[in-house]
Amino acid sequence: MIMYHPIGVIHSPFPDQEGMPIQPAGAQGTPGWIEINDDYQEGIRDLEGFSHIILLYHFHLSDGYDLEVKPFLDKAKRGLFATRAPRRPNSIGLSVVKLVGIEGKVIKVENIDIVDGTPLLDIKPYVPAFDAIADATSGWVKGKEERIGNIRADDRFRKGKN
Amino acid sequence: MIMYHPIGVIHSPFPDQEGMPIQPAGAQGTPGWIEINDDYQEGIRDLEGFSHIILLYHFHLSDGYDLEVKPFLDKAKRGLFATRAPRRPNSIGLSVVKLVGIEGKVIKVENIDIVDGTPLLDIKPYVPAFDAIADATSGWVKGKEERIGNIRADDRFRKGKN
Repeated sequence: MIMYHPIGVIHSPFPDQEGMPIQPAGAQGTPGWIEINDDYQEGIRDLEGFSHIILLYHFHLSDGYDLEVKPFLDKAKRGLFATRAPRRPNSIGLSVVKLVGIEGKVIKVENIDIVDGTPLLDIKPYVPAFDAIADATSGWVKGKEERIGNIRADDRFRKGKN
Repeated sequence: MIMYHPIGVIHSPFPDQEGMPIQPAGAQGTPGWIEINDDYQEGIRDLEGFSHIILLYHFHLSDGYDLEVKPFLDKAKRGLFATRAPRRPNSIGLSVVKLVGIEGKVIKVENIDIVDGTPLLDIKPYVPAFDAIADATSGWVKGKEERIGNIRADDRFRKGKN
């Protein structure tokens, strides 16, 4: 077993998964903020220079998993690891959000697609040379990305749901 | 506390951090493979259509952390969360690797910058519409990305090192 612990809390306008945007790409402009625990505040120095940051967090409202799921963007069932569904063997979420500013231990962000109160596990700087692969091909998602602005989450991935 | 468990093992030509490439961008063409545990094999269906996948893994050779570190790409000390250093409060690694093919429970990849035997926590499909932000600005890394092909890791982030 591998044990982690929250280093902060993510805040957003979304009290629940239902009605939430899907992916930061579907949440353009949506404001949120992250409160870093006092113990770690020193570690966010130098982050201001980055326009985007990678948030890794724990999907605390999801538990259990199925190895095939029907994603929000598709009508067909897909292998779980070919989706970004929150119910996973290790329910780690990943979002690339826009960094707006830092004040003390508060990081203001935009394009947030995360439930309010979600425990933060890690922050990494987004570096296009490492992370932006513009010509990557996107399997079953191909051609469906444009719908992302019009789709909202429902409760299919909530705790206890199957 | 949040508990996770390995869903597979990552294999690479690198027995140790020392001499390892830095980031997949510094490991172009380096082959590796991932063995998924039997219990999860069904979940990798539909992954073949993606040219790249996101690996989340546990930096098992690192422990402890400092809130300021000297990254491989810089001579100055930087806030930990503005770097991709492996010694972190939650030592989760993130690499975007090229998917070469899948045979049963083995996923063949390229551009691997990960130590052989690293425990895998999660796989997500890389979707440019979600993950590729070409015009992001990269803070202190700016202008240093090109050196990535010429730099190799040393043992500064090994277990017990400070």
